[in-house]
Amino acid sequence: MTDLDVRAFRPTPEQFAWTFGGVAPIARIPSGAVLEVFTEDCYAGKVRGPGDLVSEVCDFPFLNPQTGPFYVQGAEVGDTVAVHFIDLQPARDWGASTTVPLFGALTSTHTTATLQPALPERVWIWDVDAATNTCTFHAIDTDHTMDLPMDPMHGTVGVAPANLEVRSALVPDAHGGNLDTPEMRAGATCYLGVNVEGALLSIGDGHARQGEGETCGTAIEIAMNTVIAVELIKGVPTPWPRIETDTHLMSTGSAKPLEDAFRIAQLDLIHWASAATGMSHLDAYQLLSQAVESPLANVCDVNYTSVAKVAKAHLPSGVSPYGDAHSRLRETARAYRAHR
Amino acid sequence: MTDLDVRAFRPTPEQFAWTFGGVAPIARIPSGAVLEVFTEDCYAGKVRGPGDLVSEVCDFPFLNPQTGPFYVQGAEVGDTVAVHFIDLQPARDWGASTTVPLFGALTSTHTTATLQPALPERVWIWDVDAATNTCTFHAIDTDHTMDLPMDPMHGTVGVAPANLEVRSALVPDAHGGNLDTPEMRAGATCYLGVNVEGALLSIGDGHARQGEGETCGTAIEIAMNTVIAVELIKGVPTPWPRIETDTHLMSTGSAKPLEDAFRIAQLDLIHWASAATGMSHLDAYQLLSQAVESPLANVCDVNYTSVAKVAKAHLPSGVSPYGDAHSRLRETARAYRAHR
Amino acid sequence: MTDLDVRAFRPTPEQFAWTFGGVAPIARIPSGAVLEVFTEDCYAGKVRGPGDLVSEVCDFPFLNPQTGPFYVQGAEVGDTVAVHFIDLQPARDWGASTTVPLFGALTSTHTTATLQPALPERVWIWDVDAATNTCTFHAIDTDHTMDLPMDPMHGTVGVAPANLEVRSALVPDAHGGNLDTPEMRAGATCYLGVNVEGALLSIGDGHARQGEGETCGTAIEIAMNTVIAVELIKGVPTPWPRIETDTHLMSTGSAKPLEDAFRIAQLDLIHWASAATGMSHLDAYQLLSQAVESPLANVCDVNYTSVAKVAKAHLPSGVSPYGDAHSRLRETARAYRAHR
Amino acid sequence: MTDLDVRAFRPTPEQFAWTFGGVAPIARIPSGAVLEVFTEDCYAGKVRGPGDLVSEVCDFPFLNPQTGPFYVQGAEVGDTVAVHFIDLQPARDWGASTTVPLFGALTSTHTTATLQPALPERVWIWDVDAATNTCTFHAIDTDHTMDLPMDPMHGTVGVAPANLEVRSALVPDAHGGNLDTPEMRAGATCYLGVNVEGALLSIGDGHARQGEGETCGTAIEIAMNTVIAVELIKGVPTPWPRIETDTHLMSTGSAKPLEDAFRIAQLDLIHWASAATGMSHLDAYQLLSQAVESPLANVCDVNYTSVAKVAKAHLPSGVSPYGDAHSRLRETARAYRAHR
Repeated sequence: MTDLDVRAFRPTPEQFAWTFGGVAPIARIPSGAVLEVFTEDCYAGKVRGPGDLVSEVCDFPFLNPQTGPFYVQGAEVGDTVAVHFIDLQPARDWGASTTVPLFGALTSTHTTATLQPALPERVWIWDVDAATNTCTFHAIDTDHTMDLPMDPMHGTVGVAPANLEVRSALVPDAHGGNLDTPEMRAGATCYLGVNVEGALLSIGDGHARQGEGETCGTAIEIAMNTVIAVELIKGVPTPWPRIETDTHLMSTGSAKPLEDAFRIAQLDLIHWASAATGMSHLDAYQLLSQAVESPLANVCDVNYTSVAKVAKAHLPSGVSPYGDAHSRLRETARAYRAHR
Repeated sequence: MTDLDVRAFRPTPEQFAWTFGGVAPIARIPSGAVLEVFTEDCYAGKVRGPGDLVSEVCDFPFLNPQTGPFYVQGAEVGDTVAVHFIDLQPARDWGASTTVPLFGALTSTHTTATLQPALPERVWIWDVDAATNTCTFHAIDTDHTMDLPMDPMHGTVGVAPANLEVRSALVPDAHGGNLDTPEMRAGATCYLGVNVEGALLSIGDGHARQGEGETCGTAIEIAMNTVIAVELIKGVPTPWPRIETDTHLMSTGSAKPLEDAFRIAQLDLIHWASAATGMSHLDAYQLLSQAVESPLANVCDVNYTSVAKVAKAHLPSGVSPYGDAHSRLRETARAYRAHR
Repeated sequence: MTDLDVRAFRPTPEQFAWTFGGVAPIARIPSGAVLEVFTEDCYAGKVRGPGDLVSEVCDFPFLNPQTGPFYVQGAEVGDTVAVHFIDLQPARDWGASTTVPLFGALTSTHTTATLQPALPERVWIWDVDAATNTCTFHAIDTDHTMDLPMDPMHGTVGVAPANLEVRSALVPDAHGGNLDTPEMRAGATCYLGVNVEGALLSIGDGHARQGEGETCGTAIEIAMNTVIAVELIKGVPTPWPRIETDTHLMSTGSAKPLEDAFRIAQLDLIHWASAATGMSHLDAYQLLSQAVESPLANVCDVNYTSVAKVAKAHLPSGVSPYGDAHSRLRETARAYRAHR
Repeated sequence: MTDLDVRAFRPTPEQFAWTFGGVAPIARIPSGAVLEVFTEDCYAGKVRGPGDLVSEVCDFPFLNPQTGPFYVQGAEVGDTVAVHFIDLQPARDWGASTTVPLFGALTSTHTTATLQPALPERVWIWDVDAATNTCTFHAIDTDHTMDLPMDPMHGTVGVAPANLEVRSALVPDAHGGNLDTPEMRAGATCYLGVNVEGALLSIGDGHARQGEGETCGTAIEIAMNTVIAVELIKGVPTPWPRIETDTHLMSTGSAKPLEDAFRIAQLDLIHWASAATGMSHLDAYQLLSQAVESPLANVCDVNYTSVAKVAKAHLPSGVSPYGDAHSRLRETARAYRAHR
């Protein structure tokens, strides 16, 4: 594969980025590059067994380390960066999910503040077996075990935010970041609007699998060896992170309360479908109201994230947004796999 | 089928119920009965063409007519009524979806109150073809059309509420009501906690199909010929409406803001799974956090509704809640179909 | 005062109403009547000492007993009932405030559902001294005591709701009900839109005083001897409960999330001020944005309640809404006091 | 007043800070310093008349310019900076309030996203007369005018945020920032927790007056000549911005939904009062539930802000938090005024 520009990045611990924005790029990459990256888990690798309580072993605010940022050559405000996920391979044979004091959907938090004490802190170590494609749960209080299918994904992918801001890698918002949606798996293309020169793309927070909503606050958190292809789409803005697969278009919204996240995602998908098909906004509102799937992403982070998802087969005419970028990136993925 | 107790109810317009609670039963039924019912659409049948604007043709508050209530013999506070959906057949070859002023997810409303004027009012008449299992969309502002698969469901099923209340049939809450989830389709069993003697079960609001969230405020609204089987489960309370299929367990939560609906559903599913498997609450919290699907139901009604859904295959050991009621009701459905 | 129609009502325990709507009137009253009523406290008088935990002594759902309903002769849908508070006298020399499991602003609840255990249940008995106008707090865990000024008010006043509904007396909404605002004190006139023939006015839930937000879920709950004057205002609807004093106009909104309660109240006050002054909606939006006070009422009930309050002195020209009803009712109050 | 360290800062336009964090200090100041500062209005001075629409004349994201940051010598993470407002003088005889497209409480926004068009954009120029202490409103659509009392305050005061973040000056959060509460007036001391070395204190966003909630999104925005005194309090953290006056203690919470802002503020005030008096958390919960005032600050910004406010007279024993810092700063203010 002579014409693929493949680059490998395995950051040293000092090279991790803890924010989107505010960090110097670790590399400059051209549009079309394929990146082979290692990402550390959200605990910066410090939770390794049942006794490693997050509140004790982790070093706040050094959570959710990101691999990057990558400066995408030529990227300017108003462009879009397309990130195609070619391959995600868990880098360990175990992953850790935890409760963290005052964090998660079914506990009071620092903002949903109550007088109640925090839930007990726990660490569940899951076996992760790539050969059998299985994650194995071991209950702590009883001897139950359970196998779930592995479904690797990245909780975090994003670019530097707008408005001169620097946001913690724990935050999901219009710049992407900690969206925590299971839809960010191999085969998906994520579109991110560029807010600063070079875009400053980072990725991290691998999950061996995650339920929709990330209810307890963490997924099966795991280091990941991931391959992505990056394409710069000039002159096309993207207001909120979007995802395209062979079969679906998705918009994401991140906000509180959760209905605002829902509104953002649904409205963006209407705008996207309307632009792609020529239907009016009201007609797209109607069609999508009957066609849309609305899986939640996270209901535990600084903002909550909702996904609006529609089958391409449910939209009139063949839609190929962003000048058919997804098809091109799928071709790149095939070429990469053919030569690996 | 000599031992099936099959009863047909086709209410006259004066017999519709507009509330849950506060209405005398139209019939008394025993546990085990199979009911063949007709339900009118949410517009009380008054929207029949593109010019029939809801604000003009409908007679507030006479919206969302319910067939019922049925007095379930022997039902007492603290019991559960199981409603199994055997068959749902749209009763017309068209359905209507509309915008309604200040109603829907992507508009200001009477409670998300703004100074903006309401969105334009529209009526979309969809073709509904049972033979091809298709719903056909016709755009108003352009000539786009689109076929979507038919997926009949009931937006509304419930019992009289607790706390001496009477609620409009437009409201979803702990008593069920206007949950508006696409999961309420043939093959599903809905469990409802009994709040008053006789339970006072009603059903209505057929949809030829509906997207998750019911974004514009209405689905493809249609009259329905529906067959349900009802079983009374003594001595087992159900705090929030639950749904069981051959493959999944689901809890629903209805509240605002939407994160509260999510919390209710997720917590109830944890409680349910914990009771069904013997796992501790914290262990069930962990397992479900990785296994759960979280499709939204409605984000437009008086309360919003979120669904927490888990594959039975993702729970340790065979779970057969409510004394295996779902299996029995599936058997009843098979018997009914064999003799129809 | 020969022309005052003064009537006294002291309900027996069986006469209490536990809902708004769904209850037969205990009396018919003409517009202009003065009512001397006794209201029991929200615990139905069952919490009498530190050991009387609500979860043990109260008989759910028989909470928040209302005195009424009163059928206001001539009241029809679209009219307004004005309730002027002439006098509020605590009927006991003590009041009780409590924590109630999973109820209050700083705890998880049945809807803000978490896995945490409930807060401890407590009863604080406050001394209430009408002579010194003082409420005295006694801490439970230490020996702190504290005197606060008495400021008697009614947490609950309302009429039968619209939409064929019956609502628990614990609910605040467009029909009034459990608004729990300290603004409902002597000297205030509350305007309530009529939803059913006769309006069906009830009142209850006396508080010796209450902080804004009713954070712990209860005020200094106390039985009350209260005098109100009622006037029927024909042909003028009132969308949400409003309050007028000699110096201020107030609108209330009750909804979740709390920002919706805020939006409702602010928008209603804009509409009210605009109608009263002739200013455009946008100009009233501007003026009120700089002039409004926004004290919270409750952030613990089924809906949260926000108040939008503006000094009459901050509105152009003398405003005397509802045909100067407040002035007339003040005159009635003076006449009543002169002859008592 | 030989021992007062008084320093004047009038930033040039290039010296404004547009964020909290991420900006080099413009000066280093010792604890005890008195600062005479000029702050530009939130429009960076670009809205000067009715035709100066924000969407046309302002240069996003260069809004809400801050004067600072000031590096407080000796300030370390875990300390508190106390900012006492000695004097606020509007620097012009007019102020501007505006509607901004998709911004404000009574409009859909970029996050409360709807399909409705934005409200019309308007600029109201208020006369501001320091001699008569008056702000004069001129309606646009009619000829109404109205005088309101001047009540100068700062919408924005804060320090660099925690978690490695840089936040737009439009954001209120735990670091302070755009709290937009009318309580930030002369005589108040604001306590801010230090998150980075030197604290990096900034101030801006003067308002000639503002209603509670800042409903339309802007106050009477005006440049300000302001005098503050700064004291560093070592070893005492402050989780959320607090305010002390001669008569009251206040906590602020900034979050969405608004009930979370309420919860944060109420819980922080309980923690503060409990620590200051020795009462248990539950007893403080009870006392404050009856004593607290809960005025809203803003319901339009990126986070909403709620204030929990209690009269010192309503707390047992004389409370003088932060080692009586407020009293010392009041003394500094008196000394400053004596020598000005």
